[in-house]
Amino acid sequence: MKAALMYGTGDVRIENVADAQLHESTDALVRVTRACICGSDLWPYRDMAATEHGIHMGHEAVGVVEAIGADVSSISVGDTVIMPFAFSDGTCQFCHEHLHTSCENGGFMGNEQVWGAQAEAVRVPQADGTLYAVHADLDDSLLASLATLSDVMGTGHHAAVVARVREGSKVVVVGDGAVGLCGVLAAKRLGAEQIIIMGRHDDRIQLAREFGATDVVRERGDEAIERVRELTGGFGAHAILECVGTDAATHTAIRVARPGGAVGRVGVPHYDTVPDAQPSFFGNITVGGGPAPVRAYIDDLLPDVLNGSINPGRVFDSLVDLAGVPDGYRAMHERESIKVLVKP
Amino acid sequence: MKAALMYGTGDVRIENVADAQLHESTDALVRVTRACICGSDLWPYRDMAATEHGIHMGHEAVGVVEAIGADVSSISVGDTVIMPFAFSDGTCQFCHEHLHTSCENGGFMGNEQVWGAQAEAVRVPQADGTLYAVHADLDDSLLASLATLSDVMGTGHHAAVVARVREGSKVVVVGDGAVGLCGVLAAKRLGAEQIIIMGRHDDRIQLAREFGATDVVRERGDEAIERVRELTGGFGAHAILECVGTDAATHTAIRVARPGGAVGRVGVPHYDTVPDAQPSFFGNITVGGGPAPVRAYIDDLLPDVLNGSINPGRVFDSLVDLAGVPDGYRAMHERESIKVLVKP
Repeated sequence: MKAALMYGTGDVRIENVADAQLHESTDALVRVTRACICGSDLWPYRDMAATEHGIHMGHEAVGVVEAIGADVSSISVGDTVIMPFAFSDGTCQFCHEHLHTSCENGGFMGNEQVWGAQAEAVRVPQADGTLYAVHADLDDSLLASLATLSDVMGTGHHAAVVARVREGSKVVVVGDGAVGLCGVLAAKRLGAEQIIIMGRHDDRIQLAREFGATDVVRERGDEAIERVRELTGGFGAHAILECVGTDAATHTAIRVARPGGAVGRVGVPHYDTVPDAQPSFFGNITVGGGPAPVRAYIDDLLPDVLNGSINPGRVFDSLVDLAGVPDGYRAMHERESIKVLVKP
Repeated sequence: MKAALMYGTGDVRIENVADAQLHESTDALVRVTRACICGSDLWPYRDMAATEHGIHMGHEAVGVVEAIGADVSSISVGDTVIMPFAFSDGTCQFCHEHLHTSCENGGFMGNEQVWGAQAEAVRVPQADGTLYAVHADLDDSLLASLATLSDVMGTGHHAAVVARVREGSKVVVVGDGAVGLCGVLAAKRLGAEQIIIMGRHDDRIQLAREFGATDVVRERGDEAIERVRELTGGFGAHAILECVGTDAATHTAIRVARPGGAVGRVGVPHYDTVPDAQPSFFGNITVGGGPAPVRAYIDDLLPDVLNGSINPGRVFDSLVDLAGVPDGYRAMHERESIKVLVKP
């Protein structure tokens, strides 16, 4: 089958690889209907050391189950399924607590051990706990939004949940990538009164406004912090969604928080310590977040996707086939595209 | 009147100063019945640069109201009052949200602007919002516990609340000072099932056990982290109360947290960045806390003090008069004493 592999910085190739197949009795084999390129895929695209064997890429997908292992009972061949970016058994204490990304028998899709979804098919471990079968009449136009439930929409929602967005909250979203945009949508859905997006790309800002953003801060650094203070009556925001993953973005997130506020971090951290330990302490500002338990959130979010009240699939502004994946990485890296949907 | 002033490292003096008096119409003048020496007073005791004028010390007290300003309405002359370490107006948005330590018109007791409670009397700003009148028949034996509601017991409780201690929680308390000990008591009161105290002073450990600690970890560093993992079934604790304020203690707190767990910081941070940004992210560990809104917590804690179900005043193992305050600092600094109660 064909699959996308990354060999080093800026080096993504489509290759013929061994067909995906069942290894364990708890696996499912999923024919990929839609996959995605993720903002987090851009980190290695920018700085991965060259390898000889390549890494199988892709951790977001919607597909159709083609085969199941002997111990798979809740998923059937022919099911249309959402594949969360992390696999999980659905039975351990952490899964029961809805923290599937810390599953005792879990792990992540798209690496050397578990190949990726930017491929014709993918082996999914712990199929019963991982895959979410969508038993509904599905129009193809819904596939993009379903694909976001495998990562970006669930991740934006996680940031909003951790940041304690509720009815009437003043919210700041740091980052105008696909996760930030989904964070805007999630904040709106949870009842935020004011949603300030920090970003400077016109196309993204436009979509953020359509998703519910009420204000835009294009400034950076201290000016941006000052601007948010002005927009929030001088004190900052209740809830901050940190959707970038840099030290600078985290600094901004903490400094725009209102006393007693909360920061939800979902940008994979490219920093070793969380800045502003003293301001966050004296303001009683909480910093939380991490890999989103998107599997847990599908129950909440799917009905809103199916009834059309949210349409997170709009974050995709480009559709490619597998051959178009390498150029899709380039386009996202160069900010030509917000997020690329892949139809293998 | 006599008052304690700090002039530099290890240099606390009892001096005759101008009598405390009303300045603002919202002030109250409180005759101090009991004051305390706080663990946070030891930071400047260890490293304060020498000054010529000295700093008025003390931010914890119980006393009797001697005079009130024209605009004070809820506090009367003769009331026995608890004086929280932070003053607050009780009417701003933050006070309404029970975050009195971020009051728009608030501040802290015991500094150059607002003199301290290690004195015969103290001027308390924003008396209506700050002071808590205790309308009960008070036995002198209760005064020590009432004094803890002005800081340490409320602070330990804040750590437990922020760390989300609830029925059945596994809890770690980092630090065996008076705040840590009150944290043990608070965790027990909130229903914790397992309370692990990290410390190595026999007298403190003994009191921690009497307050409800179920396990003791005397190791430090990686060994301590390993030991907590063993004691908690391999995964760490749900709730960690960080009651020290150093980078090392914060590192330990984060590393003993279970995935999805929470750290409540109440040790005044002597570090600029919060360590372990990546482990805390990948474990979805929340780090929160700050100066405790002890004024808000008195409503919850006072009934339990009055009915004897908690006795946080046991953290005091030494009682001195004002003349004994300098030696009280020395005794706490040298770990001879857990916490010193002052009867002016």
